[in-house]
Amino acid sequence: MTYCVGLYLREGIVLLSDTRTNAGVDNISVFSKMQVEEVPCERVLAMLSAGNLAITQAVWNRLQEGVRFDGARHTLRTVGNMFHAAQLVGQAVRDVFQADGAALQAQDVRFDISLMLGGQIAGEAPRLFLVYAAGNFIEATADTPFLQIGEHKYGKPILDRVVSFDTPVVDGVKLVMISMDSTLRSNLTVGMPVDLLVYRTDSFAVTLRKRITEDDAYFRLIREGWSAALRHAYLEMPRPDWVP
Amino acid sequence: MTYCVGLYLREGIVLLSDTRTNAGVDNISVFSKMQVEEVPCERVLAMLSAGNLAITQAVWNRLQEGVRFDGARHTLRTVGNMFHAAQLVGQAVRDVFQADGAALQAQDVRFDISLMLGGQIAGEAPRLFLVYAAGNFIEATADTPFLQIGEHKYGKPILDRVVSFDTPVVDGVKLVMISMDSTLRSNLTVGMPVDLLVYRTDSFAVTLRKRITEDDAYFRLIREGWSAALRHAYLEMPRPDWVP
Repeated sequence: MTYCVGLYLREGIVLLSDTRTNAGVDNISVFSKMQVEEVPCERVLAMLSAGNLAITQAVWNRLQEGVRFDGARHTLRTVGNMFHAAQLVGQAVRDVFQADGAALQAQDVRFDISLMLGGQIAGEAPRLFLVYAAGNFIEATADTPFLQIGEHKYGKPILDRVVSFDTPVVDGVKLVMISMDSTLRSNLTVGMPVDLLVYRTDSFAVTLRKRITEDDAYFRLIREGWSAALRHAYLEMPRPDWVP
Repeated sequence: MTYCVGLYLREGIVLLSDTRTNAGVDNISVFSKMQVEEVPCERVLAMLSAGNLAITQAVWNRLQEGVRFDGARHTLRTVGNMFHAAQLVGQAVRDVFQADGAALQAQDVRFDISLMLGGQIAGEAPRLFLVYAAGNFIEATADTPFLQIGEHKYGKPILDRVVSFDTPVVDGVKLVMISMDSTLRSNLTVGMPVDLLVYRTDSFAVTLRKRITEDDAYFRLIREGWSAALRHAYLEMPRPDWVP
């Protein structure tokens, strides 16, 4: 399993992904689920992946080799805008399905993949997409300024309640860390370390990319602080005075 | 979808279930998912259900009619102890599967049911079980003093962090309300009103059974208070000072 979360904020984009990959509970490995393409002064794109590792790696390899799209071979470094970038990722997913789908089906393996693609290409504002296994996609908007893939439920309540398009990026980092912590706590197949990427609007350079380990001081602060804060919030809530 | 949660506490048992049933998003109804049998001074048993409504109602009808078990016909009012009660419920599930399973499969309808059974029969301590679609079951213990059926993920983080066997019943009510509120907020197919049952150990009578509606003062207090508390907790958490 996997948990990846992306915030689409006025100030920029915040992405966080875990790194646990498992084929059964006795075969657990660390793989980054975050890939980044950066052309300084021109574009930053980051892709997060959930699902079958062979499929997600096949998609990423194809994207680096170049995918046939709109009459030419393109990569995330050459497509003209973010919409085309999402289409390119969708096309790569469809190409992998075309190549491997039948063989997977013959082994009863589901074609399981979902991707998040966020970033900015000069000429337009940042955008954040979620690409499905069918290669189609949706986009985050100011109304719903976050997307999640993988094990999304445990970490959603805090996002539902707090995040808005005007949340500052620095608070966004705090939020995705809290959201990830809730998920790590409740689902063993989501695991540390986690990869964080912050991109500030119109900077056309990665603002921050950081691998956060169990020992990270801020992560520990969130982990211990959020548990204590939840317990405190629960204690502060009034007791029902009508229970005999 | 459904959300039911049960706490197994030293002081007693707390059960909470929602009431939304849906066959598609355009066919939503209110059905209680909580059934109670009470023999004053002798036993209290409550059953919560999740899954296909026709299947859960069939199981309940069979339990009221009597289910063949251990060479005789029994109901939850006649079985000798809680273990036998859980076996009886499991047998009722298997009987329904026997009767309807093939016809459901022919229509590609999954045999989808899970049940929670909690209570006390004179002669032993209270017990709380979760019965699966296969008719087998697990039991809550002091180590893991809560069970959930249905849409369990949104409401689990607060339980993971707070509940223990020594949580007082009155705090247990607060906890299940918070857990339900998180679920209601994030999944539209879990809906108000909710049914609450409190049973105090060795009382052999229902301590409290209450239908809680949207207008309920305590529910509103939890709903608004918990949102505010989460936002406050989030604001109190330190910002990362290392984000450029």
